[in-house]
Amino acid sequence: MKLLEERIRRDGIVKEGNVLKVDSFLNHQMDTTLFNEMGKEWARLFKDAPINKILTIEASGIGIACIAAQHFGVPVVFAKKSQSINLDGEMYAAQIESFTHKKVYNVIVSQKFLGPDDHVLIIDDFLANGCAVMGLIEIIKEAGATLEGVGIAVEKGFQKGGRELRDMGVRVESLAIVDGMDASTGSITFRPQQVR
Amino acid sequence: MKLLEERIRRDGIVKEGNVLKVDSFLNHQMDTTLFNEMGKEWARLFKDAPINKILTIEASGIGIACIAAQHFGVPVVFAKKSQSINLDGEMYAAQIESFTHKKVYNVIVSQKFLGPDDHVLIIDDFLANGCAVMGLIEIIKEAGATLEGVGIAVEKGFQKGGRELRDMGVRVESLAIVDGMDASTGSITFRPQQVR
Repeated sequence: MKLLEERIRRDGIVKEGNVLKVDSFLNHQMDTTLFNEMGKEWARLFKDAPINKILTIEASGIGIACIAAQHFGVPVVFAKKSQSINLDGEMYAAQIESFTHKKVYNVIVSQKFLGPDDHVLIIDDFLANGCAVMGLIEIIKEAGATLEGVGIAVEKGFQKGGRELRDMGVRVESLAIVDGMDASTGSITFRPQQVR
Repeated sequence: MKLLEERIRRDGIVKEGNVLKVDSFLNHQMDTTLFNEMGKEWARLFKDAPINKILTIEASGIGIACIAAQHFGVPVVFAKKSQSINLDGEMYAAQIESFTHKKVYNVIVSQKFLGPDDHVLIIDDFLANGCAVMGLIEIIKEAGATLEGVGIAVEKGFQKGGRELRDMGVRVESLAIVDGMDASTGSITFRPQQVR
């Protein structure tokens, strides 16, 4: 998606260690006008899928997912990070390893809000190693729901998440795929994507 | 706001200990059509305020704030919960006591995204003891920004947060104020609010 790539080039900051900071418009300060265009694009890409629910994970996926949901006319459910797995049997749970924060945490979704009738689109801001998305897929399986696809704002194409998901047969629509970054020059290389 | 009150009566669940669960439409599963009407209402109520930024706190405030922001045409910044205060001097920080989770946590906002030129509307899903909002107000003060008001979805009118904020001269617009609940009957009493 050209609009997002241009915005990343303009306002993204490349740091050592393959870090791309997009916190001025995507995941700390949030540009909802941009989110609206992103939502419109996912709705176009997934127009043939019978999506009736969007699933995301706190915190930075929530804003993007809510605005995208307006273009699908479906509710959003967000997986909550939890210190301890709630053992009352009312929650689906998965463990997610965070490379950024170097720890494992639990995510939970109430069984009331996900079930066998649901056709789910996962939305998140970043896809790198794919641990968050894999955790959400585990929860969708626990619920007996159907995964229709994954919508990602920024995929780090040089990390394994996107490849592993596509190898599993999951439909992944990343609006921008970063194939390389150079912290010394600040340059970013995007993967060319066909307009469909 | 009648629409929200009706939704709380229909789908809210009253539990012992003055707990009101609205997780089927407000803060776990999220009804973005309802959020859109709430955003429209805050935009109407605050139409005379020169708001140029919305501030909220992760996680459940983010979706409501993002959709409300579309009616103001301004960016959203969300305060992040942090295990440790980042000491690199690039963050505003405040401590917030959570009664629900019985712990104190730090919230941080990058200094890049809040400053003396900002006129800020705080948006959050719940107002009870007011600790989260007080923490956000502390951050707005640190930034030298101007607080224009606070928009709340559900205020628990029998707890002290709303009263303390209004006593401080803060403009608080709560779309539904719950003055009482009865877990045995499930009944909820709303504070009558004048239509302006």
